[in-house]
Amino acid sequence: MPLINVKMTHEDGGATKEQKEELAKELTNAFVKIFNRGQNSTVVIIDEVNTDNYAIGGKTITKIREEQK
Amino acid sequence: MPLINVKMTHEDGGATKEQKEELAKELTNAFVKIFNRGQNSTVVIIDEVNTDNYAIGGKTITKIREEQK
Amino acid sequence: MPLINVKMTHEDGGATKEQKEELAKELTNAFVKIFNRGQNSTVVIIDEVNTDNYAIGGKTITKIREEQK
Amino acid sequence: MPLINVKMTHEDGGATKEQKEELAKELTNAFVKIFNRGQNSTVVIIDEVNTDNYAIGGKTITKIREEQK
Amino acid sequence: MPLINVKMTHEDGGATKEQKEELAKELTNAFVKIFNRGQNSTVVIIDEVNTDNYAIGGKTITKIREEQK
Amino acid sequence: MPLINVKMTHEDGGATKEQKEELAKELTNAFVKIFNRGQNSTVVIIDEVNTDNYAIGGKTITKIREEQK
Repeated sequence: MPLINVKMTHEDGGATKEQKEELAKELTNAFVKIFNRGQNSTVVIIDEVNTDNYAIGGKTITKIREEQK
Repeated sequence: MPLINVKMTHEDGGATKEQKEELAKELTNAFVKIFNRGQNSTVVIIDEVNTDNYAIGGKTITKIREEQK
Repeated sequence: MPLINVKMTHEDGGATKEQKEELAKELTNAFVKIFNRGQNSTVVIIDEVNTDNYAIGGKTITKIREEQK
Repeated sequence: MPLINVKMTHEDGGATKEQKEELAKELTNAFVKIFNRGQNSTVVIIDEVNTDNYAIGGKTITKIREEQK
Repeated sequence: MPLINVKMTHEDGGATKEQKEELAKELTNAFVKIFNRGQNSTVVIIDEVNTDNYAIGGKTITKIREEQK
Repeated sequence: MPLINVKMTHEDGGATKEQKEELAKELTNAFVKIFNRGQNSTVVIIDEVNTDNYAIGGKTITKIREEQK
């Protein structure tokens, strides 16, 4: 039962339900293909994080997006 | 100061405040009983995750619950 | 690309956008000062957690705050 | 399939295999008792962390233990 | 810069360096394909966990493997 | 009791004990300065990750370092 945790910014309305289903399926398939186990047991948890709470190089994504406009 | 992090799906209205209090108490007690430390310092953090964002075997819990109906 | 994840209780209206910007900047600077790398690549993710979901010594922060009143 | 992650310091030779088995069992039981689910699916992962890498109040546990001697 | 964290048991000598390279590449590709971003910035971190420290249904993987023999 | 978790690659012999002490102190100070709490209770946990297990843009740090030579 491998665990795969994804942390991504919540932007432009966020990931859709369909994108999350596809992500869960694709990440699981990638693991199974390489290690030949986990098909039924791989757990995927997706955390969508507000851009105020996510920073790179000391700058929040909110600020980076503002500067990109 | 052991840290215990619980990730669980948010279903049926979610865990109640009382269930979370009980969970924090019971998990802490379990740790203390076995290791004889952490009584005042164990930290418990509970993450409730949307069923769209939690998957097993490549399928989101949302989808699994729909199929179970 | 070091990753710094902060988990803190969401209290008194929560951290402001400015506090989070400052936190991201200061934590990144601290890392860079010590290890001399990560200036542009350090990722900071801040999780604000409901006080019902955060406990210490087997008691939720919600309960601890009530008793402190 | 709730996930329970424990982070604890590795001290005095570390937790024994038996203690870890007991911890996994007790934490799982605590969850099941309160939420009435997860009996077969709860995942417990235990991270034992070097005391050099674990700090409280800005001081590593290594340093705290030295001062306690 | 999405982050993908994989936790898996360390078994049979553990994942090889090649498998880990492939895993990092495949997980990144899966994310990029669905969200059309993250190609250069997705971070993948793989934690291999001792089977004594990984349990499901209240039983460590060490014990489960012994019973499967 | 805020929690600060740092994940960084283990390179060039790894962070020294002194660097880790300094990191724990500086990160704690940064938090305290901004939020005016957590002085005695902030927990810092540092995870040093093998460069085979850490990737960016689908490439492990091991590979990136080899190409930089």
